[in-house]
Amino acid sequence: MSRRNIRVVLAYDGTDFFGWQNQKEGRTVQAVVEQALAKIHKHPVHVHAAGRTDSGVHAAGQVINFFTDLSSIPSEKFTPALNSILPFDVRALVSEEVDESFHARFDARLREYRYYIYPQPIVPPYFRRYCHWIAYRPHLGRLNRMASYIVGTHDFTSFSALGDPNPSKVRTVQSAAFFPQGPFLVFRITGTSFLWHMVRNLVGTFLMLDQEERPPEQIREILEAKDRDLAGDTAPASGLFLHRVIYDNG
Amino acid sequence: MSRRNIRVVLAYDGTDFFGWQNQKEGRTVQAVVEQALAKIHKHPVHVHAAGRTDSGVHAAGQVINFFTDLSSIPSEKFTPALNSILPFDVRALVSEEVDESFHARFDARLREYRYYIYPQPIVPPYFRRYCHWIAYRPHLGRLNRMASYIVGTHDFTSFSALGDPNPSKVRTVQSAAFFPQGPFLVFRITGTSFLWHMVRNLVGTFLMLDQEERPPEQIREILEAKDRDLAGDTAPASGLFLHRVIYDNG
Repeated sequence: MSRRNIRVVLAYDGTDFFGWQNQKEGRTVQAVVEQALAKIHKHPVHVHAAGRTDSGVHAAGQVINFFTDLSSIPSEKFTPALNSILPFDVRALVSEEVDESFHARFDARLREYRYYIYPQPIVPPYFRRYCHWIAYRPHLGRLNRMASYIVGTHDFTSFSALGDPNPSKVRTVQSAAFFPQGPFLVFRITGTSFLWHMVRNLVGTFLMLDQEERPPEQIREILEAKDRDLAGDTAPASGLFLHRVIYDNG
Repeated sequence: MSRRNIRVVLAYDGTDFFGWQNQKEGRTVQAVVEQALAKIHKHPVHVHAAGRTDSGVHAAGQVINFFTDLSSIPSEKFTPALNSILPFDVRALVSEEVDESFHARFDARLREYRYYIYPQPIVPPYFRRYCHWIAYRPHLGRLNRMASYIVGTHDFTSFSALGDPNPSKVRTVQSAAFFPQGPFLVFRITGTSFLWHMVRNLVGTFLMLDQEERPPEQIREILEAKDRDLAGDTAPASGLFLHRVIYDNG
């Protein structure tokens, strides 16, 4: 019986999860997915994920992979099989067989995150779980000037989280820009990988500089100082979506 | 000290409410709004609402009115005052003084409801609370043919709810049509007033006839039969929004 490596694209509402990764306590996305796969396989199945999203962070295109020894389920049928078991705040969107060597985390070439800001005096209740509500309109041109300074390879220590275990804080941002979308102001950022809280710390800092009417160039100074204290607050998890993950073979 | 009549437009996420109207048990929108007003006034305040939405039904533009004896709060400041107290699944959008004779329910000239259908194999988790998910694409032209038969003044007994206390089941529908909006298929209906469950019973019946490939004209036969058993299931509350209410003076 041959073993297949299955890739699945997941969407989830992170509101009621303590993030992706299994923890001693608290409901995690990884746990509900592994429980669903264990039910299908009748034995434990371990999954790898492209992005270990934090507590409250959403996903529109998380990518996972796992190995199956079940010959009875065609690869594309893992989507309905999972959806018949998963709670409604997690959905499998696509499933397919990939090369045995494929690893959702290590092979990811590009990760795209989107951060949704609702810049209006009052946030409609049906949007509140999926955005960061600020009661004013920030200056789009200034935000995009700031974003331009973080594109490229930099030491992002100033935008890292306390206790981040990664020895190197150097990361490469491929693109970073704000754009309006309906009533939202969206920050789109792509890169190979990101530090813990990095996207939310960047957004929090951009908004702080804009609100204090400080020059956009100060982003460069904050970067170069490698000092977390100079950056702004971590923007709320509710606005952040892991939008998609790109691999060399699609 | 003069008494003012205040009109407020509300939006709410109905998911975690047992509808608008106060009940012996269960959290209602009316109760949280009256509690907020009692806190502002330091005495009980009764509110009237244009639409007594059911359990789980949302509002983008519910209209209420109440009388205030507080001279300290300008009419437009009831919006931030309420929002500083209300839970985040209810928001005041606008508040203004209206004529003493204004009554949110009795003076409503037109009510508009919208019903959101998500006609795709998989519903993204962040939409699930705000739509009715059906895993197939219904035929838009057929649905609109059906909707055309209910426009006008009819006895809607076939689309009423068991136990509806209204003596007359005659209602006037001013307009009724389906249109695509982003990934959703939206049913928009306007009329002076609606029977209990009427909009959801109409949607459930349209979808049933479409799926069973029955002629759209059968809607007319179901109407004329005045028999609830001929109509389809009540579509879920999650898809329904009280979109707006129109009065003669704006």
